[in-house]
Amino acid sequence: MRKLGLIAGGGSLPVEIAEHCKQAGRPFFIARLKGFAGPELAPFPGADVGLAEVGKCIKVLKRAGCQSVCLVGNVSRPDFKSLKPDLRGIAILPAVMMAARKGDDALLRVILNEFAKEGFAIEGAHEAKSDLTLGVGPLGRITPNEHHQLDILRALHVARQIGALEIGQGAVVCDGLVLAVEAQEGTDAMLRRVAVEIPAAIRGTPGAYRGVLAKAPKPIQETRVDLPTIGLATIQRAAAAGLAGVVGEAGRLLVLDREQVIELADDLGLFIYGVEPPPP
Amino acid sequence: MRKLGLIAGGGSLPVEIAEHCKQAGRPFFIARLKGFAGPELAPFPGADVGLAEVGKCIKVLKRAGCQSVCLVGNVSRPDFKSLKPDLRGIAILPAVMMAARKGDDALLRVILNEFAKEGFAIEGAHEAKSDLTLGVGPLGRITPNEHHQLDILRALHVARQIGALEIGQGAVVCDGLVLAVEAQEGTDAMLRRVAVEIPAAIRGTPGAYRGVLAKAPKPIQETRVDLPTIGLATIQRAAAAGLAGVVGEAGRLLVLDREQVIELADDLGLFIYGVEPPPP
Repeated sequence: MRKLGLIAGGGSLPVEIAEHCKQAGRPFFIARLKGFAGPELAPFPGADVGLAEVGKCIKVLKRAGCQSVCLVGNVSRPDFKSLKPDLRGIAILPAVMMAARKGDDALLRVILNEFAKEGFAIEGAHEAKSDLTLGVGPLGRITPNEHHQLDILRALHVARQIGALEIGQGAVVCDGLVLAVEAQEGTDAMLRRVAVEIPAAIRGTPGAYRGVLAKAPKPIQETRVDLPTIGLATIQRAAAAGLAGVVGEAGRLLVLDREQVIELADDLGLFIYGVEPPPP
Repeated sequence: MRKLGLIAGGGSLPVEIAEHCKQAGRPFFIARLKGFAGPELAPFPGADVGLAEVGKCIKVLKRAGCQSVCLVGNVSRPDFKSLKPDLRGIAILPAVMMAARKGDDALLRVILNEFAKEGFAIEGAHEAKSDLTLGVGPLGRITPNEHHQLDILRALHVARQIGALEIGQGAVVCDGLVLAVEAQEGTDAMLRRVAVEIPAAIRGTPGAYRGVLAKAPKPIQETRVDLPTIGLATIQRAAAAGLAGVVGEAGRLLVLDREQVIELADDLGLFIYGVEPPPP
């Protein structure tokens, strides 16, 4: 089994994958991105690297004997002026900055390309840990009813299209109307806005759920990285926004803290539902 | 000159058009939408009508001798359950509710169709008062520089595309990255979010403007109604969000309070810029 180099940002996903590797007996080594990777990663084998220390990152992962890399966790988009790149970082910075203008996906492709050039295989989080993504059908006890189907289809369509435009990955639709679309503010901020800025007349309420959140990768997305993700905060905020459920494409939506997410959605009465991805 | 029936919601646009008709000696009569039309309209000839009193609205405008109608001003999307429609209103309510699922533009088309059936000509606000829209080039003293051109093109492209998807009319782009897209929350809320929710590293600031707001109708939009609009609040919020300027399509962006808007943009150092609309 090839040794995994986990390049880790913030949040619970890097921890989940590290725990999984440990339990499965798969060798791994973590490059902890300074300022992003959480303290829960400290007990695992690893080293700290700066966000733009691309040369150092490659070196520590090679020295540890890693054959593949998996880039996971949250990294907020940096102010390029404040980065402290090493030589390798400086070399790719112009390409990174050009790609950054096209969106996160393009940016990540440039970075991963450097690792591929060094002979690393690239793994998506869902490849490193196979039960991370949504399957087809309901994830918990609650299932969408017939009335929800139109909103599910419309929300997924909008989420894919705004992905294709390099805008974002999420959309909220209620009774056919697009209430909100996610760009750089992120899903949580979008859901908060539905709860506080959208008139109650055109959305659901915690007492009477209506509408859905869809998260989908763009049709041509590099799905090895930057898959859309949901977690406990997503479910909580979706309920607060009066939504009836959350939908995504099977195999293409990461579910963090899976057990707790299912329990929370069941308790709150929201569905989490996976549909077959569209043919490529 | 045909007599104008002004069906008036809130905001300054109905007042501007009424003042314009009065000064130009054009006969007009206002159907003031209850709960939306402001008290500044009271001095003009007119009558109050409920939002769903379609029959009454047609009757008062016919009795006043109007030959055309112009639907202007803000009307927030109603809770359909709270409407008190008259008979004509009840007759079209199913079609209105169906259209509402497709977006504001579809909804307005259904309503205007009722007036067209009764023989009224339909006028857009920019037809009732021709100097309301943006022209080609800068509106005030400030002009965009070369660096802004890519953001202008990208923001207009995104605004048109999200229009085509029936999502909304506005988008904010900074250095090629789509920071925010407008759906049902409206432009002001979107600009507020850029100021408070988007990391300062990827946007401009009031001291160092970067990025633009674009508002554009969707490629197939019924431009007689529901043209995108900017006003004093748009300029204020765009400056607070650190944007360098506001762009739109010539003849297809309404500018409210034109003189004050130009003065404010000049004072704050923002450009307002019109580009030729794309060929149909």
